[in-house]
Amino acid sequence: MQLIDGKAVSEQIKKEIAEEVALMVAHGKRAPHLAAILVGHDGGSETYVANKVKACGVCGFKSTLIRFEDTVTEVELLEAIDGLNKDDSVDGFIVQLPLPKHIDEQKIIEAIDYRKDVDGFHPINVGRASIGLPAFLSATPAGIIELLRRYNVETRGKHVVVIGRSNIVGKPLANLLMRKDYPGDATVTVVHSRSTDIREQCLSADIIVCALGKPHFLTADMVREGAAVIDVGTTRVPSTLTKSGFKLTGDVDFDNVAPKCSFITPVPGGVGPMTIVSLMKNTLLAGSKAIYK
Amino acid sequence: MQLIDGKAVSEQIKKEIAEEVALMVAHGKRAPHLAAILVGHDGGSETYVANKVKACGVCGFKSTLIRFEDTVTEVELLEAIDGLNKDDSVDGFIVQLPLPKHIDEQKIIEAIDYRKDVDGFHPINVGRASIGLPAFLSATPAGIIELLRRYNVETRGKHVVVIGRSNIVGKPLANLLMRKDYPGDATVTVVHSRSTDIREQCLSADIIVCALGKPHFLTADMVREGAAVIDVGTTRVPSTLTKSGFKLTGDVDFDNVAPKCSFITPVPGGVGPMTIVSLMKNTLLAGSKAIYK
Repeated sequence: MQLIDGKAVSEQIKKEIAEEVALMVAHGKRAPHLAAILVGHDGGSETYVANKVKACGVCGFKSTLIRFEDTVTEVELLEAIDGLNKDDSVDGFIVQLPLPKHIDEQKIIEAIDYRKDVDGFHPINVGRASIGLPAFLSATPAGIIELLRRYNVETRGKHVVVIGRSNIVGKPLANLLMRKDYPGDATVTVVHSRSTDIREQCLSADIIVCALGKPHFLTADMVREGAAVIDVGTTRVPSTLTKSGFKLTGDVDFDNVAPKCSFITPVPGGVGPMTIVSLMKNTLLAGSKAIYK
Repeated sequence: MQLIDGKAVSEQIKKEIAEEVALMVAHGKRAPHLAAILVGHDGGSETYVANKVKACGVCGFKSTLIRFEDTVTEVELLEAIDGLNKDDSVDGFIVQLPLPKHIDEQKIIEAIDYRKDVDGFHPINVGRASIGLPAFLSATPAGIIELLRRYNVETRGKHVVVIGRSNIVGKPLANLLMRKDYPGDATVTVVHSRSTDIREQCLSADIIVCALGKPHFLTADMVREGAAVIDVGTTRVPSTLTKSGFKLTGDVDFDNVAPKCSFITPVPGGVGPMTIVSLMKNTLLAGSKAIYK
């Protein structure tokens, strides 16, 4: 069994990005600039955004954090987005989700200029990625693809089972894994809460990606010997053992599943760090105008 | 075994559309208007476009056919598209594919205003459909979904195997079949030319959709008793028995597969007529501004 060390890979990629940024700057260009809009004070969102800002520093990017209280109106938020769309000094920006209930998330996402949409959530980026055109890829699927690539996990002609059909993980990942490329060229099955054959599908899988958000959903009896398992789950489970009072828990019953696997990602330290790195990669692509002019 | 009569369903739907159009006109609105651009004189394209124009007549739509020789330049074609984009009397339009090699098809597709893109090929429509937002759906997948609905074929919790990963059939259909809706909520597997387990996957399928373009690819030994089979293949195979010198041949070995099936579509007369009807539905939606204002 080989542990897929997302933390180590993410550090390596950030180093590679920092080198590219140093080259850009040495050639007289400015460093890429990522802006983030954070609404309210949700603990999870605060942590995610803080980690993104920190990663920008490591990559040599400029970053700007724009904060709003959770009483912000939709109009105010749309104005801030419009400002960032028009600001030539900003290459890409994100609006940290979730947003307060009185704000229409989809409207916010679609208000972002797709050429600055480094989260890859705008329909144009989703559509272009689906067709196989250059696009900002959604961070988690792109991070998983990069882990498979860096660990040389074979996908061609293999059966991949993706558990979960979300717009930001399951569906775009399935799409990437079936394209004519490596990592890709796989037979891809998507199962979800309404599927009646999850166990059978998993037992026939060479690779299982678990993105359901149910702690310890994938148990050892659902995994065949030699399978690779990617755990996307990051549920905050209350814990008396940590200072924060919770611990991040994956969708995989790691202790019992790991011994059967060829490859497996831990939680934390697997897919999580790669998600932020994908955002950094998109920001680099935005800064160098590699996808859109 | 029940034969899914796509021709009969398509006639029924055209009747329903014509009734809606009559109502629109009775309320003082004008009838929807579809324009089609046809480049060159390819036999297949000529037939498809002629059938679309004919269907417009049956539905009570206005239609306009714009012809170019295959010597047309990309710039000339882009100008024609720009004209149609700006023409308020045109609700939707299509550019019949394939185009001559000197023209960039993707550029042409993206030049079409997505609000008039009744083929559903523009990245915005692809992305919106993928996310589950209202959009012009690609005609063939939408037609298949409609056939499943009209014949009450159960999809919820069933295993659907889609053979083929094309941008216009396999991928968007897989996406529709996994959404939280009926027809949908299925476990969906996409297999393709690089898959090594097509037979095993098909043998576990409740529904098989064959969209590979290989005549008689799906044989009886790949289908389990009681499965529903949807044949998207329409390969023109030379024939001495027809006046045209060819006959349309499906991807399914119909004679041997049909006896095992709960439902099966014939070729011709199955999915084919539904594809044109989907285009008519999109044109109606465009004409009534039901998706975009």
